[in-house]
Amino acid sequence: MTDGRDTGLALDPRYDAAGLLTAVVTDHASGELLMVAHMNAHAFALTRETRLAHFWSRSRAALWKKGETSGNMLRVVEMRIDCDQDCVWLIVEPAGPACHTGARSCFFRRVTPDGLERIE
Amino acid sequence: MTDGRDTGLALDPRYDAAGLLTAVVTDHASGELLMVAHMNAHAFALTRETRLAHFWSRSRAALWKKGETSGNMLRVVEMRIDCDQDCVWLIVEPAGPACHTGARSCFFRRVTPDGLERIE
Repeated sequence: MTDGRDTGLALDPRYDAAGLLTAVVTDHASGELLMVAHMNAHAFALTRETRLAHFWSRSRAALWKKGETSGNMLRVVEMRIDCDQDCVWLIVEPAGPACHTGARSCFFRRVTPDGLERIE
Repeated sequence: MTDGRDTGLALDPRYDAAGLLTAVVTDHASGELLMVAHMNAHAFALTRETRLAHFWSRSRAALWKKGETSGNMLRVVEMRIDCDQDCVWLIVEPAGPACHTGARSCFFRRVTPDGLERIE
């Protein structure tokens, strides 16, 4: 089943009950998944306007311009949205590590049958 | 700030209030983002055991073996987890289109200043 939101060309984001979209961030050069975060309408608008990734921090309940303190901003090369418009894909050029642990990507551990294995 | 969950090698998924993890699915061959879905503990366990992607359908409130009706299963080549262990990354070999619209990826529209633009 599809409807206008699924296949049409009108931007009609479907925010969840908390007013958020999921945002998936990949590296423009390597294609690597860097991080997953959330955006409220304000963060989404600021990201579109400035071409720098802005999120909504659920833990701090505050607007979060990625890299504002660390300097590791994410410049948005392209933004896409999924079929039901509740998730955006940011293809970015990162200025530095995306993860707060200092790793390039937040996904630096592989899930194995026994637990986790560090990748880099 | 980091803790054991952030940097350690113990698998300790952090399910949200609804008992779900976010699952990001990319294509092993192309690197393309295919879809974003959710997993409860059962779907996560089945995915690890069978190496076929299982999700929790929030709209149907049911376990969802991807491709069970369409045949478009997702074979998991590798699974990673992010720093706070609330999101998993599935790197897969898709048997067919990942999107219910028939598109290869759910992210077939670009966000432009004016609205959306179809990519393929």
